[in-house]
Amino acid sequence: MNFKYIEGGICAAKGFKASGTYCGIKKPAMDNQNPDIKHKNDICLYVSDVVCNAAAVYTQNKVKGAPILVTKKNLEKSGNKAIAVIANSKNANTCNADGEQKADRMCQLVAEELNIPQEQVIVASTGVIGQVLPIEPIEKAVPILAKSLCYNKNLEAATAIMTTDTVKKEYAVAFEIGGAICHLGGMAKGSGMIHPNMATTLNFITTDCAISSELLQKALSEIVKVTYNCLSIDGDTSTNDMVSIMANGLAFNEEITAEGEEYEIFKQALYEVMSNLTRMLAKDGEGASKLLECLCTGAQDKDTAITVAKSVVCSSLFKAAMFGEDANWGRVLCAIGYADAEFDINKVDVDLRSDKGAVTVCKDGSGVEFSEEKAAEILSADEIYIDINLNQGEESATAWGCDLTYDYVKINGDYRT
Amino acid sequence: MNFKYIEGGICAAKGFKASGTYCGIKKPAMDNQNPDIKHKNDICLYVSDVVCNAAAVYTQNKVKGAPILVTKKNLEKSGNKAIAVIANSKNANTCNADGEQKADRMCQLVAEELNIPQEQVIVASTGVIGQVLPIEPIEKAVPILAKSLCYNKNLEAATAIMTTDTVKKEYAVAFEIGGAICHLGGMAKGSGMIHPNMATTLNFITTDCAISSELLQKALSEIVKVTYNCLSIDGDTSTNDMVSIMANGLAFNEEITAEGEEYEIFKQALYEVMSNLTRMLAKDGEGASKLLECLCTGAQDKDTAITVAKSVVCSSLFKAAMFGEDANWGRVLCAIGYADAEFDINKVDVDLRSDKGAVTVCKDGSGVEFSEEKAAEILSADEIYIDINLNQGEESATAWGCDLTYDYVKINGDYRT
Repeated sequence: MNFKYIEGGICAAKGFKASGTYCGIKKPAMDNQNPDIKHKNDICLYVSDVVCNAAAVYTQNKVKGAPILVTKKNLEKSGNKAIAVIANSKNANTCNADGEQKADRMCQLVAEELNIPQEQVIVASTGVIGQVLPIEPIEKAVPILAKSLCYNKNLEAATAIMTTDTVKKEYAVAFEIGGAICHLGGMAKGSGMIHPNMATTLNFITTDCAISSELLQKALSEIVKVTYNCLSIDGDTSTNDMVSIMANGLAFNEEITAEGEEYEIFKQALYEVMSNLTRMLAKDGEGASKLLECLCTGAQDKDTAITVAKSVVCSSLFKAAMFGEDANWGRVLCAIGYADAEFDINKVDVDLRSDKGAVTVCKDGSGVEFSEEKAAEILSADEIYIDINLNQGEESATAWGCDLTYDYVKINGDYRT
Repeated sequence: MNFKYIEGGICAAKGFKASGTYCGIKKPAMDNQNPDIKHKNDICLYVSDVVCNAAAVYTQNKVKGAPILVTKKNLEKSGNKAIAVIANSKNANTCNADGEQKADRMCQLVAEELNIPQEQVIVASTGVIGQVLPIEPIEKAVPILAKSLCYNKNLEAATAIMTTDTVKKEYAVAFEIGGAICHLGGMAKGSGMIHPNMATTLNFITTDCAISSELLQKALSEIVKVTYNCLSIDGDTSTNDMVSIMANGLAFNEEITAEGEEYEIFKQALYEVMSNLTRMLAKDGEGASKLLECLCTGAQDKDTAITVAKSVVCSSLFKAAMFGEDANWGRVLCAIGYADAEFDINKVDVDLRSDKGAVTVCKDGSGVEFSEEKAAEILSADEIYIDINLNQGEESATAWGCDLTYDYVKINGDYRT
């Protein structure tokens, strides 16, 4: 299979227009959580030229943001069809008595402006939990967003969903299905409150590949499990997590309606985009100075590999050690040891690796001598790989995270003001 | 029931002698993780005048420190009898190929010196994982420890088990059972890698109450569940967690051999000591500036109350907000929402409280207006109480934790050197 990286994010697929603007959901003076994005976009819209098959996965947090409830309701009502997505940052519209009413209103504004059914609008919000969402700025913004929709304004949208993110996250690929060139791309936001459970943060995927909504949902659920759900920044599962995907069929391949070779290609394309977005999210974790990528091989089953790899990237102690560039591998073993899975700890090998080299720190569950100097050099890199071999099977999985730094504490000690 | 706080820690009960010394397990020059405890004790011994009934609970981490394995083996072999406990800090003797051999040797040294059966010795180690334990310093220390045993040297022992702890942790109570005055006391260590699962950190309890080893084990397991297991500093379950308890019967009450009123009094005494030690552990969490105590009431069952209360004190985001004295109650709701328990989130009320007042921040799962000024004043205190009422039952539980600070990152960025 051949996947070619392309520019364009959510506008990489044919027939998707986007726009973004600053509407002032938070007052500029209060918007000091990241001086670099002051006055930047806080709301976006994207729209397909034709009706799409759609699928989504949502947070498993019992506290669900109002936009989650409204999107779910809309997709049920429309039979998993969607045309437009509206998303804002800086206010999560969660734990508000009037939250659903406001989220409905956002869909209504888009529907009226674009003359489409309200239930074909997906809505998403991210930001502070528990503050009333001001609807007036959105009422003013929607006509502006609609008028400025354009096939190459993916960046306007990708920056509008940023909160404490320091970089925008977009990725897209081109691939071939049955002679037709297809495109699949996406954008993501998220920096803190990231410990996905069935879904994570806000992620928006678009494709021009023709595929049934049933298979779209199946592929999304499968790939979420091995990408976003293998990511943790801080162990906190957000109330507003959602991944949505829209397929408009404008690549004019024969619609994928059954599992088989074409479905596998589509799934692989989805993996390419979602795993790259996952990596970007990890690398831009709140306060992060290093990306941590943990590969667990030799597991008896996939779930064990996922559980072990995630346990390591979730360990606060290990994350702090990586910030300090300290090869404290005992903390890796400790985190493997409390992972909720069945395996023999006495067979486990651990290597630490980066572009500066690799070193084996643990063999058969016990420490081995290694050069602290070499280890310190390896850990001075920006991207650290922790390779765990359980040596008791053939399955593997990757999990992504970041180090725990002073800046994480700083950012989160005073997020609201 | 009447419990009187008394001095004496593990020597509060009749017939328990203790001692502690510095043997140099880590070289003084390397011992820079806490300048205040440089050259302080790193090994201790305590001994009962007569054979004790004993019980213990151990970490559920698959990686188990060698001392855990040896203590378990010893108590099985001795039929839950014990006379002496030896414990060292600064080296966990975990993930070492020769770990069990060294832990056995520590017991042997004590047994020979005191002329007691080797299987009646409990051994514990805490400190860095995966560094070979030097046995020579311990061979030299044991005769010194044995010679300096004394009925009031509990402090020498309590300081010997400290790692990144900044204060020693001791607590003891006197109480009456069947006309006999009993004493129960303990010491604890632990500051990081604290997220107990069946046991936590190193905790040593002694009592002169006469009670069968079966009921001792039962009481310990029950009280651990609502004290140490409701504590989290950083989400990392240690490899060397252990709580041991020894009862020598020197209070000469009629031995408690069945559940009933006397057993309940004993259990309550154990709760008094263990809950106070738990609180001390939370307050001295690595880098902590504030104690967090979360009380969950109105739960349908005890496990739900425990799960919800723990979820809140485990949230990195909420912990960072408390450090910043920011009343970001949305993070409390978020953490309640991802707790792995069944309940209706729309009935939940949340109050924030300290010795400076209280404020309701959430009612029926939605935010309510409150004075940010008042909230900031409340959160400026050293001990913060989060009161959650699920409003759907009669059960309650408390969990303890601390805030997430720059110092946590600093301490753990470079723990080994």
